[in-house]
Amino acid sequence: MTGELHEECGVFGVFATGEYDIAMTVYYGLYALQHRGQESCGISVCRNGRFNTHKDLGLVSEVFTPNVLESIGPGKMAVGHVRYGTTGNSGRENAQPIVVSHSTGNMAIVHNGNLTNANVLRSGLELNGSIFHTTSDTEIIAYVLTHERLRSSSAEEAVVKAMEYLEGAYSLIIMFDDKLIAVRDKHGFRPLCYGINKNGDYIIASESCALNAVSAELVRELLPGEVLVFDKSGVRSIRDNCGKAREAMCIFEYIYFARPDSVIDGCSIHHARLNAGKFLAEDYPVDADIVIGVPDSGTDGAIGYSRASGIPYGIGLIKNKYIGRTFISPGQKSREDRVRIKLNAVRETIEGKRVVLVDDSIVRSTTIARTVAIVREAGAKEIHVRITAPPFLNPCYYGVDIDSRKMLVACHHTVDEICQMIGADSLGYLKKEHLDELPGCPGEHTYCTACFDGNYLTHIDAEYKKDMFEGD
Amino acid sequence: MTGELHEECGVFGVFATGEYDIAMTVYYGLYALQHRGQESCGISVCRNGRFNTHKDLGLVSEVFTPNVLESIGPGKMAVGHVRYGTTGNSGRENAQPIVVSHSTGNMAIVHNGNLTNANVLRSGLELNGSIFHTTSDTEIIAYVLTHERLRSSSAEEAVVKAMEYLEGAYSLIIMFDDKLIAVRDKHGFRPLCYGINKNGDYIIASESCALNAVSAELVRELLPGEVLVFDKSGVRSIRDNCGKAREAMCIFEYIYFARPDSVIDGCSIHHARLNAGKFLAEDYPVDADIVIGVPDSGTDGAIGYSRASGIPYGIGLIKNKYIGRTFISPGQKSREDRVRIKLNAVRETIEGKRVVLVDDSIVRSTTIARTVAIVREAGAKEIHVRITAPPFLNPCYYGVDIDSRKMLVACHHTVDEICQMIGADSLGYLKKEHLDELPGCPGEHTYCTACFDGNYLTHIDAEYKKDMFEGD
Amino acid sequence: MTGELHEECGVFGVFATGEYDIAMTVYYGLYALQHRGQESCGISVCRNGRFNTHKDLGLVSEVFTPNVLESIGPGKMAVGHVRYGTTGNSGRENAQPIVVSHSTGNMAIVHNGNLTNANVLRSGLELNGSIFHTTSDTEIIAYVLTHERLRSSSAEEAVVKAMEYLEGAYSLIIMFDDKLIAVRDKHGFRPLCYGINKNGDYIIASESCALNAVSAELVRELLPGEVLVFDKSGVRSIRDNCGKAREAMCIFEYIYFARPDSVIDGCSIHHARLNAGKFLAEDYPVDADIVIGVPDSGTDGAIGYSRASGIPYGIGLIKNKYIGRTFISPGQKSREDRVRIKLNAVRETIEGKRVVLVDDSIVRSTTIARTVAIVREAGAKEIHVRITAPPFLNPCYYGVDIDSRKMLVACHHTVDEICQMIGADSLGYLKKEHLDELPGCPGEHTYCTACFDGNYLTHIDAEYKKDMFEGD
Amino acid sequence: MTGELHEECGVFGVFATGEYDIAMTVYYGLYALQHRGQESCGISVCRNGRFNTHKDLGLVSEVFTPNVLESIGPGKMAVGHVRYGTTGNSGRENAQPIVVSHSTGNMAIVHNGNLTNANVLRSGLELNGSIFHTTSDTEIIAYVLTHERLRSSSAEEAVVKAMEYLEGAYSLIIMFDDKLIAVRDKHGFRPLCYGINKNGDYIIASESCALNAVSAELVRELLPGEVLVFDKSGVRSIRDNCGKAREAMCIFEYIYFARPDSVIDGCSIHHARLNAGKFLAEDYPVDADIVIGVPDSGTDGAIGYSRASGIPYGIGLIKNKYIGRTFISPGQKSREDRVRIKLNAVRETIEGKRVVLVDDSIVRSTTIARTVAIVREAGAKEIHVRITAPPFLNPCYYGVDIDSRKMLVACHHTVDEICQMIGADSLGYLKKEHLDELPGCPGEHTYCTACFDGNYLTHIDAEYKKDMFEGD
Repeated sequence: MTGELHEECGVFGVFATGEYDIAMTVYYGLYALQHRGQESCGISVCRNGRFNTHKDLGLVSEVFTPNVLESIGPGKMAVGHVRYGTTGNSGRENAQPIVVSHSTGNMAIVHNGNLTNANVLRSGLELNGSIFHTTSDTEIIAYVLTHERLRSSSAEEAVVKAMEYLEGAYSLIIMFDDKLIAVRDKHGFRPLCYGINKNGDYIIASESCALNAVSAELVRELLPGEVLVFDKSGVRSIRDNCGKAREAMCIFEYIYFARPDSVIDGCSIHHARLNAGKFLAEDYPVDADIVIGVPDSGTDGAIGYSRASGIPYGIGLIKNKYIGRTFISPGQKSREDRVRIKLNAVRETIEGKRVVLVDDSIVRSTTIARTVAIVREAGAKEIHVRITAPPFLNPCYYGVDIDSRKMLVACHHTVDEICQMIGADSLGYLKKEHLDELPGCPGEHTYCTACFDGNYLTHIDAEYKKDMFEGD
Repeated sequence: MTGELHEECGVFGVFATGEYDIAMTVYYGLYALQHRGQESCGISVCRNGRFNTHKDLGLVSEVFTPNVLESIGPGKMAVGHVRYGTTGNSGRENAQPIVVSHSTGNMAIVHNGNLTNANVLRSGLELNGSIFHTTSDTEIIAYVLTHERLRSSSAEEAVVKAMEYLEGAYSLIIMFDDKLIAVRDKHGFRPLCYGINKNGDYIIASESCALNAVSAELVRELLPGEVLVFDKSGVRSIRDNCGKAREAMCIFEYIYFARPDSVIDGCSIHHARLNAGKFLAEDYPVDADIVIGVPDSGTDGAIGYSRASGIPYGIGLIKNKYIGRTFISPGQKSREDRVRIKLNAVRETIEGKRVVLVDDSIVRSTTIARTVAIVREAGAKEIHVRITAPPFLNPCYYGVDIDSRKMLVACHHTVDEICQMIGADSLGYLKKEHLDELPGCPGEHTYCTACFDGNYLTHIDAEYKKDMFEGD
Repeated sequence: MTGELHEECGVFGVFATGEYDIAMTVYYGLYALQHRGQESCGISVCRNGRFNTHKDLGLVSEVFTPNVLESIGPGKMAVGHVRYGTTGNSGRENAQPIVVSHSTGNMAIVHNGNLTNANVLRSGLELNGSIFHTTSDTEIIAYVLTHERLRSSSAEEAVVKAMEYLEGAYSLIIMFDDKLIAVRDKHGFRPLCYGINKNGDYIIASESCALNAVSAELVRELLPGEVLVFDKSGVRSIRDNCGKAREAMCIFEYIYFARPDSVIDGCSIHHARLNAGKFLAEDYPVDADIVIGVPDSGTDGAIGYSRASGIPYGIGLIKNKYIGRTFISPGQKSREDRVRIKLNAVRETIEGKRVVLVDDSIVRSTTIARTVAIVREAGAKEIHVRITAPPFLNPCYYGVDIDSRKMLVACHHTVDEICQMIGADSLGYLKKEHLDELPGCPGEHTYCTACFDGNYLTHIDAEYKKDMFEGD
Repeated sequence: MTGELHEECGVFGVFATGEYDIAMTVYYGLYALQHRGQESCGISVCRNGRFNTHKDLGLVSEVFTPNVLESIGPGKMAVGHVRYGTTGNSGRENAQPIVVSHSTGNMAIVHNGNLTNANVLRSGLELNGSIFHTTSDTEIIAYVLTHERLRSSSAEEAVVKAMEYLEGAYSLIIMFDDKLIAVRDKHGFRPLCYGINKNGDYIIASESCALNAVSAELVRELLPGEVLVFDKSGVRSIRDNCGKAREAMCIFEYIYFARPDSVIDGCSIHHARLNAGKFLAEDYPVDADIVIGVPDSGTDGAIGYSRASGIPYGIGLIKNKYIGRTFISPGQKSREDRVRIKLNAVRETIEGKRVVLVDDSIVRSTTIARTVAIVREAGAKEIHVRITAPPFLNPCYYGVDIDSRKMLVACHHTVDEICQMIGADSLGYLKKEHLDELPGCPGEHTYCTACFDGNYLTHIDAEYKKDMFEGD
């Protein structure tokens, strides 16, 4: 962990009306979802029941060269995946799609989320002689699905049955020999939407920005617990689980993960972030000369703050856009100095000013402290930090990689202490009571805010909890 | 040419007080200058009179892996270079630094600019039996310098003499066995500044943002025609040519090339761009609901327009930040569609609004046309395009890669026609009379604006002219 | 298939008395076994119960760079594998070792051979919900072993039980958390031997040449059906299946696959090949001036023929030793021309001579035909081809990749016809009756000669038969 | 230096009757010459006066992928080069062909040899302002040629004039815009021959085996001092320098460098090596049971010894053929152990026998000592080493990389001492008086034997001598 938050994955699928160069569509879709995972990616294309798959470590634009795309070939259905993962050698094995060939037919699975009963399921499967090649939840899902297929009359029946065993967060797209099935867990922790393009091809994606990238129109978000079947007769919904559980879409998708140009449940992410800035302006007004955001994630909040407060918005920090995965961190320098290399101040904007500095969240506090120092060195007279999220106090078991509690600064310090630690003149976090109004989506919606308030909607095994959060 | 403008190069140099891991400093400096050239890069380090050099095609973060940096080793002096270049196999040969070992000593040259008498010089040298391995100007400079060194008593004397032969734009850093010499041509077409860090190490760079990246303080810009010598006795200036010619710093550095957090001649680039937006607001007022910029280069202008007009600033377009050099362009799709993949609209901001859309320049018009279409599809009622530069009408012979005249839309169409072609409701270019006031630098300054008005400060050979600009 | 024969694999394992840089030992061992498989390779090291594995497509010297070897780290046990495999994308997944982490402990398997009941076993496992990531037999073995471990009190008990289910050819090395187990199927189709070095470390390998490469002394070949357990108390044999089935070591290991410096069952491979040449000289004497071998596999036979016949031995053909996996085959030229690029004649040896040309086998006949033509062009007056194997008439189901029957020239033509087709003056194949005497090993031994005579020792499913051999 | 001898280069050229996929022909030619240099390679193709070049570090089969070959494109003329070079970063710059574009036309040079007046020429050129990018002689040749072209009426005139300045060893092929010129220095130190194929295309190559590889017939070796011009009117010889100097073809080409299937000056290399073995049998007879060669270079000598002595020839050592450039040498093990990994004994051949072991040369003695030990461990009762060359006592200034004198064992020890050091029972070197009769070529020929007897045919500067040979 490096003091940053990581989404685990993005998923994408296409069910086309006819065979064409479908891998290119998935390529563009994954490229639009790259912000959800930069470690590995993969595409699986189905042509006449045969699955052609390529997956590897690297960005979409690195892994999918023209030669590779051509080797995958054309098809009528396809799924793709981008993944953030832990470092190390194991990465390649854990890349998705997970493709299974079995006597009941082929299956390619892409998954965004995290099962909370993975350990229990895996132990049970192992006792029945199952063996695992990866350490990812997705292989467990593949096993459960396979077991159900052996005693089901259709793929969709198997999917619905399998959902009874899976607990936690999962947005899945599963490609079978003749159909594509999209699934969202009963709480709807992770987003998943679908759309349609001019040819009548169905597109499924984690976020609507990926539909835009392939010129498809958003139809709607899947409902929590919904199973959508895409096959030659079109799309149909199996709503067995819909509405039976409390809806709990991850609020942090709105605050940080999703792209601002995406729309979830009818609500613009950009709008939610403007709202966060507005709430901060109302709750923590300050006499200042300029509002600046930490690029890229603090920009929207800063504009929201500026509009609500009337203080002008400015560009105070420039982010180096050539930062790559292979960028070398200096051996002798600490992480703080990496901030300096990525960010530089626009002295013109800041010098002699009282500055409101908006960022999305604070994890360990080292990054924001260094950012404050950069702004201070550029001549700011005062620096008022505003954070578009409440303090992180709890782990996420639903697919977000939050630091262990001992690293989370808000677990051990008051807001005043943190303000002093980061060298700010004042510090304001978004108040928890605003979280539900943040997105401002039409209709009634409830959100998962467990990382801020500890209200988990599923049972979390005590030991699992410890493993995930208290470790190093 | 792809309808975009390209700066040719960025240069960086260090003269340290003692031997240390100097390649890492150059690495960070080049990384900050990466926007000036993404095709190739190189570093040459001098340790005890021995030059260790590595250069290759690729981004700084790709070419300089930890192993490579270690293999270059420590040293007391170093120079580095980033380069935009033409495509093709020849790229690797043209990468810089150009390193020459000669009986008069070693020499490593990095160069930003373009000689206007390259053909004449090269012909003359060839008639004397010189042979050229590359097609770059820098090799010509190396020859001229070598000829002068044979009849000079010092490296700086050779540099001053060589300058009499070189016409056109050149900002150079030349590493000799025991000193570093920085040179700016007599018109000062390309920027070059120097600074100093806490250890007393001197840093020379194309832009001040690279000094910030290595925690050095900007001392000042080199004067046009100035030669600065860095050696063990410190820094001294040889001003033989200073002030003898008309200063002609490239105005397009302010409009587009330089990073907004850089300062040239005491003037912030960001400030110049805010100014451009302000002039546009004054010259082309419009009744609108929102001002948006085309990221990243139109952002500053949009904020300037918003402030001067009172129309709110908003985020209307999101740029995919994972675009890589290897990104595949769709075989069957045209360049216009690539815009869609790189840019997506934030419907929330745009829908139902009258939009002012600010961008930095128009080359062929296809890119802006597609951007206008994206904004229109997102529901804009009106779209008023404002460009922070005058129309391109002439080639640049001083280091900027502008399309051939037959491709430049402003050479063949009126503003009204272009407005119609790109599908905008109105179109306003920055007026030429504002160019000199744009930077707003302290003191008297004059600029090269030849690409807009055709006023070249040096003799341009008729045939050369033809080669460079009328060809395809 | 390219008209050549391919062994499937080579295996190697080490059980050391203490922890050390064990991956290097496996590296040297695999390097000595590289002739048994050039497509992929892998090493798994066990250190304190943790398995570190690296495997990839490529030669041992390509895949295992110093960085990779260091990343695997030191350990006390290790297994390694080289593999010949089919072309295509699937290769990487099928690379070995297959590593399984399971509640009963870790397991890394390397395998040389081919199961004849793979389809039956896989179907059964799939009906119980097992899913397969690879198409290799080794994953089936992993499943069967895992099932048995769940109901066994020790790893060796599980191995012995699992052997009851596995039919066909398998020489295995299995690394568990605290022991290494080596297994040879009850017929002993594929070789497997072990040795010991000066430190008392045990080494297991497909061939004794790999023991030599790591300075270990050969102890002996495993018996057919033997299970050897290597753990901290030393080595012990579990002979449950030994001697219960007819021994059927692959005779083609002696003729072609094994390295001439290896010793199997106390018999030198080189000696067996000299014998083959001797039998040919006795059965097909000819009045000739020189005996030459097709390098490298015909050399030993040629020397044997020369010694028995008294006709001088000479070097008549030179093989280009830089042929690589990536060598380009000419687009417009046929396979025959590739022979010319790999082989060139020594005219000095051949011109004006009556030549005996010895090669190891004939598959499609195109390669030998082209070789004969090269010898003819170099001036041979007569060419008498002698083959150190009988004609190929049947498929191999025990781990050798022989062409489909429709491609095998001996299935469709008489020896006389083949002689004419290849342009030889006479042609003699090794007589089948000599096969059993070929190795000349001490003690009683019987061999599998099914590819020549069709006598299979295990049941071969009719459909499986068809798939493997009659297809293209 | 690693105790082995290295040839510097191989050259290849084609002048075709029409345009075709000529790079493929050069590819096959270079592939056949790979034994002359494995560090880097390059091809330059001329199509309509335009030169397309690709060169890089690596083997021919690695550097020239199908994509690269296609990118070079078709043409009517081409030259290629393989190079052995020193290690390190500089390698890529020194790769050939050296391509020069100049006002007098293009020029691509490939070179095998070594100039003995390189330092003098380079100093002179530098004093005239020339700058050098590489450290190779070939760049000096390019300069001299360019100077001469400026005052010559034709390319061939320039070549003939340039030869007056060049001293030492050089076999060159030079591609101009419309002709190919092949040159051999006046002593003829390095081989160079030409041939013609069925289409009437001319092929020039370092060795005849490369003509065979492209189905061309050898016409003849170039004469010492000969200039051959290939252009649209065919081939013509300019014999200005022919026969004016003593012929001094390198004798070590016959002993070690050239491929045994090559023919130089009408004499088979294989034959020369058989002769060497015969001389050794006559001069150093011994009572023994078997003659074996160290593969691959001692094999021919061993057969020669066997034939002359009547002692049977056998295969006693097997060389691992998968040794690659990237093969890792063990950190903790010495070079001696690398021999063990590359070579393994065939115990069957050696055990209990009195062995004659034939190798081509002894440099430092460590390699042969280790080989003797391997043979001893395999059970040899006696080992009689026979070397098909006299002792190395002097440096080579004509293109062979021989170790410095302090490393050469024969400079410091008697034959008896060396025999004892390497653990042999007897040791015999080829007697110097046989060197001239070794090749047995038709006609009168004299050879350069300076490395054995110190008789240099050109002036060697005292300081140069020191640099080259006494250094480390």
